[in-house]
Formats: sequence, structure tokens, C-alpha cells
Amino acid sequence: MSLLETTVQTIKPLDSAAVAEAQARQNQLTKPPGSLGHLEHLSCQLAGITGRLDPPLAQKHIVVMAGDHGVTAEGVSVYPAAVTQQMVYNFLSGGAAINILARQIGATVTVVDMGVSGFIAADHPRFLDRKIAPGTQNMAVGPAMSRQQAERAVETGIKVVDDLAETDGLDLLMTGDMGIGNTTPSATIAAVITGRAPADVTGRGTGLNDTALQHKIAVVKQTIAMNRPDPTDPLDVLAKVGGFEIGGIAGLILGAAARRVPVIIDGFISTAGALIAVGLASQAKDYLITGHRSAELGHRAMLAHLGLSPLLDLDLRLGEGTGAALAANLVEAAVRILNDMATFAEAGVSSKEEDD
Amino acid sequence: MSLLETTVQTIKPLDSAAVAEAQARQNQLTKPPGSLGHLEHLSCQLAGITGRLDPPLAQKHIVVMAGDHGVTAEGVSVYPAAVTQQMVYNFLSGGAAINILARQIGATVTVVDMGVSGFIAADHPRFLDRKIAPGTQNMAVGPAMSRQQAERAVETGIKVVDDLAETDGLDLLMTGDMGIGNTTPSATIAAVITGRAPADVTGRGTGLNDTALQHKIAVVKQTIAMNRPDPTDPLDVLAKVGGFEIGGIAGLILGAAARRVPVIIDGFISTAGALIAVGLASQAKDYLITGHRSAELGHRAMLAHLGLSPLLDLDLRLGEGTGAALAANLVEAAVRILNDMATFAEAGVSSKEEDD
Repeated sequence: MSLLETTVQTIKPLDSAAVAEAQARQNQLTKPPGSLGHLEHLSCQLAGITGRLDPPLAQKHIVVMAGDHGVTAEGVSVYPAAVTQQMVYNFLSGGAAINILARQIGATVTVVDMGVSGFIAADHPRFLDRKIAPGTQNMAVGPAMSRQQAERAVETGIKVVDDLAETDGLDLLMTGDMGIGNTTPSATIAAVITGRAPADVTGRGTGLNDTALQHKIAVVKQTIAMNRPDPTDPLDVLAKVGGFEIGGIAGLILGAAARRVPVIIDGFISTAGALIAVGLASQAKDYLITGHRSAELGHRAMLAHLGLSPLLDLDLRLGEGTGAALAANLVEAAVRILNDMATFAEAGVSSKEEDD
Repeated sequence: MSLLETTVQTIKPLDSAAVAEAQARQNQLTKPPGSLGHLEHLSCQLAGITGRLDPPLAQKHIVVMAGDHGVTAEGVSVYPAAVTQQMVYNFLSGGAAINILARQIGATVTVVDMGVSGFIAADHPRFLDRKIAPGTQNMAVGPAMSRQQAERAVETGIKVVDDLAETDGLDLLMTGDMGIGNTTPSATIAAVITGRAPADVTGRGTGLNDTALQHKIAVVKQTIAMNRPDPTDPLDVLAKVGGFEIGGIAGLILGAAARRVPVIIDGFISTAGALIAVGLASQAKDYLITGHRSAELGHRAMLAHLGLSPLLDLDLRLGEGTGAALAANLVEAAVRILNDMATFAEAGVSSKEEDD
């Protein structure tokens, strides 16, 4: 059996006894039942994922998957493709938004070259050269990659998780991306898997004007017509209209779910990865925490398809894992609330009047 | 001149040069302009409040204003009024939700008895006995308090801020409340000041059923008909249909704005306090950061009236300052992003293609 098949088979349902125990404790804490809203649900989910009411959160890791896209030849981004490589160096020197947010929450940032066009000359303990190819092919004229490469991208993500878990320990994983042009494959994946029209899921990315947006929608339509990806076959979708970093993110999710580690997904690109991951293993969905709702058109449709609710809605559209990192404090708050609050009995506080 | 008048006159507009400087720097940082959404706006607001791009955030303080409400005699809450006093003890022993969240962000929790019915027997460095009266009068049959008491409540809040600033230093203030029954005066204030119908701003509080909710709406209507508060006179509104802790929160806001300290307001009750504060000094609005959107019906109308957008929307309805404390990490993130990220020039990253 392949690593991918083994991993998919290892993913199990949440621990329903732990979920019920967490819910019971929430109802005994000194607050009206349910009054902490999504934080209460989150604490129950974390209990179900880890099988304990006090999941550890000491080892927090952000993985930024980087890759380039042949489809940039169609003029779908306002930034030159060289920015992917430049931003990888920015991540490694610690100056990007994700580095700042990682420092705030005490997380590491690992950067993986899944398929950047240029060579990354870096000797950095958190840089992994896992380049599958120097960018995908232009999916507007043919498949982005081979099926074999798609499988390798996903398995690379799984192995990154395994290595992090075995080397550093892994309590909370956050996914991120870097890839000029990658809202185009993500929108295409969204259209194929959710069944929505390209115009409903294709947005402005880093800042397209109206004319350029119409062109991008046309590119997505052409890509689907050219490749005819099978929506029921996630590896086919990834190969024909995806990206190396998107496959890597799908692998991160599957690897974490197999290890019962919670995963905070970032925005539009990470959720495209989640669509692939959940297509491969539907139970992986229960291990996902949605960091935020992206400003990118189409993210809402993706989240609705997966049945996920975002923790934050701050009009972000940066990627890199920033929306995931910002949500990490809410995950920590949920765990602390469940464990550290006094119960009605402990605090001598009256609960609801019985005749109400 | 009274302390209230002096304070109102001290509140000045934001520093527009600092706002512009922060905005200019945001556009040079290694990300597409605007891609960090509300965090970018927040960083500019903080610059405008403090007059500096690197506002300090070391001294973070949460103030929980506590008070009881005569209107509980009308049966508007599912919890007995004694819970206000019990929860004050819970705050002081560190077991309530706000204590847990304060610990997470490194903030202190000061609890102020603005008008709890029972005597609080506490010798705690962060407990302040500022009791104006043992609970308000039943506003369904007459004014909640005198105009003099209303002014004293607001001035008490101002003095609490002054003391915190002078004793501990104060970089970031978060407001919170505790008071069984206090969604009823808050809904009444909302109806009077926003002009909405009571049914549109009165919610279930800690968990009323349909019948009890209809009764609560009737109580709000009766309270307004009985007292005829003048919507253009905030102290009249506070006196007739408010609460001691709500007046205290209004004072916290005015005191902080006068000192150019950012204030994160919590949910429904704190925003009722903000309606009073902004009515007294319209420029105080610019010093407000909205922690979250409460699940309580009516909060949306209050925020729309004030022109405020919440940072979080987590279906919370607890109060205590929990929604403010949860948002504090976003404030810190906004400041770190503005100060610590690399610029395009520093990182050697290409900016937008000029011909796009």
C-alpha cells in the first residue's frame, strides 16, 4: 500500500466519549450554558481530536508550502512570478507577515519548496527542498502536473508532518501557502469540486482590476474545458488543475488527521488543499479548524461545501498561513476555558432558577 | 467644571499625521496593499490614538463593572440576582472566564462594585468598592437612579482609569460587566438612543424562552413609556433606564479617550455604555475598538448606530469583558505587523507590475 493509502486508512472518527465529556464540563462551568459560543464547540472538537480534555498546545508549527504556476503565463496575477522565490527568502529571513504572527504565538515556520521555479539557495534549519518540478505546467493548455506528481505532492505533505511530529513534537499544525498565481488553480479546484460556476468562485487575488478579473474567469473556464477533471477523483483534480503547494497542503491535513493532531487551515489556497484532502478521506474534515474567512471570492462557497465555519472574518487575503496563525490564540483560549474555569459547585454560584 | 465636563473637553481627535504615516508604512510592507484587511485599519487607528507607530501594549487592564438591577423584580432573567455578588467573588478568586482569558493575554482584572445589592466582603488589591447604591430602582415603575447618581457613576469610571494609569500605567483598556438583569437596561438604552423598536433590540440574555422574551420586551416598552428618557441627553437616559455598571463603563471609555488610551469594548452591555459615552463626547468613538459582535439581539443595531465593526463574531453572550480580552491578541498582532515586517525594499521583493 502507498503512504497515501496507509494514511487515509489511519484516519479515524473523533473520540465521541471525549466530546461528550467536554460538553458536560462546559455546562458545569460558571457561565450560562452555551454563552461562550464557538469557543465551546472548539473545545469539544479539540477533545474529540486528541481524546483528552487538556490537549497540549506547546508544539505549534506553521508549514508554508511554496510553488509556482505555469498558468501565470496567461497573466492572472498582478505580481511577477519571481515574487514566489523572493518571498521564500523573506520567510527564511523572518520579515514576512507569517513570521511576525508566528513569533507572537510561539510557533515555528517551516518553508517547503514544493515546486518553486527558481533554485532556492538556502541553508536554513526550517527550509525543506522538496521540489517536484520548477513550477507546474500551464493548465490552460494541458494538465498542471502528472497524476504521479500529484500523488507525490500529497505524500510530501504527509512526510513533512511525520518529520515535524517525530523531531519536534506536534500539538497544533497551521497550514500556509506561497505561490504567485495560486488563486487561479484554487478557484478552478473550487469550481470543479463544489460545482459552482467559475465566475462565482474566481476573485481578484492580490488585486486584479475588472478587466483582468474577467480574463482570469475565462482562463478558469478554459482550464476546465481543456482538462475535464473528474470531480469524484481528487488526485485527478489536483493533477489537472492544481498546484504542487496545494497538494502539499492536502498532505499536511491528511498527515495531521492520521496522527490526531488539530489543523488550523488558512484561507483560500489552504481550503483548496482541504477540498482535495477531504475528497481523499472524508473524516479528515473533523480535524480541521477554519482560521478565517478570506476576502477572496469563492472561499465562502468552499467552506459551505465542506460545512466549515471560520473563527475570524477580518477581510484578509494574504495567505502564508496568516489567518491560521491569528486564530491560534482562540484555540488556546478554548482549551484554557475548558480546563481552568471554576464550576458552579466549586465557586458557590447559583445556576439557573429551576422554575424558569 | 465637573470632572465629567473636564474629561469630555480633554478628548481630542485622532492624530491624523500618525494615521497617514501608519498607512504609508502598511503600503511598503511585503504584502499586497490592503491584504491584511482589518488589521491594517486597526494599526492606523492605534497610531492615531497614541500618536506613535509603535504604541506600547505592556500594561493591559480589564475592568469589570458590577451592579444590580431593580428591574429583576419583573422576572427578566433566568438567574437569581444573587449571582451578581457570587460572580464578583468568583472574579476575585480567579475562576471566571474573564480571569482565564486575562491570564492568557497578561492583563490584570480589576472588579468594581458600582452597585451590587449585597455587601462584598473582600480585601483584594484589584477590588474597588465604589458602590453608589445597593442596586438600581425598578425602572419599570420609575427612574433607575437619580441624575446625580448617573453622573457619579460616569465619574467613578473616569477615576478608575485615572488611578490605573497613575498606579500601574495603562496602555490598553478592556471593559467588562457583571450584573444579573443588565441586558434589560442595555436593550432599553439601545431602543432609546438608536430609535429602534424594543422588539428589535431586546434579546434572550442568559437564556430566556419565548414567553419570557415577550415579557421582557413588554418590560422595556413599559420602562420607556413610564420614564420618557430624552435620547439627546445621555445622562437622562442613563439615570432613567440605565445601570450603575453601565454608567461606570461609559466613564471608563471617556477616561481612556481623554488619556489617548485605546479601549476594547466587550459586547452588549459595554456597547450600551459606549452609546452613553459617545453621546457625551462624540470623539470618544475614535478611541473604541469593538471586541466582538454579541449573540444578543440588538448588538448589531447598537454597532451600526455607532458605526463600529467588530473584530470577532464567535456567538458569545457572556459579558465580563470576555469578547474584549479575546480581541486583545488581534490588537497586538496589528501593532507587531506594522512595526516588525520587512518592507519591499528591505527584503528585495518586487512590488506590483507597473503595467497592470
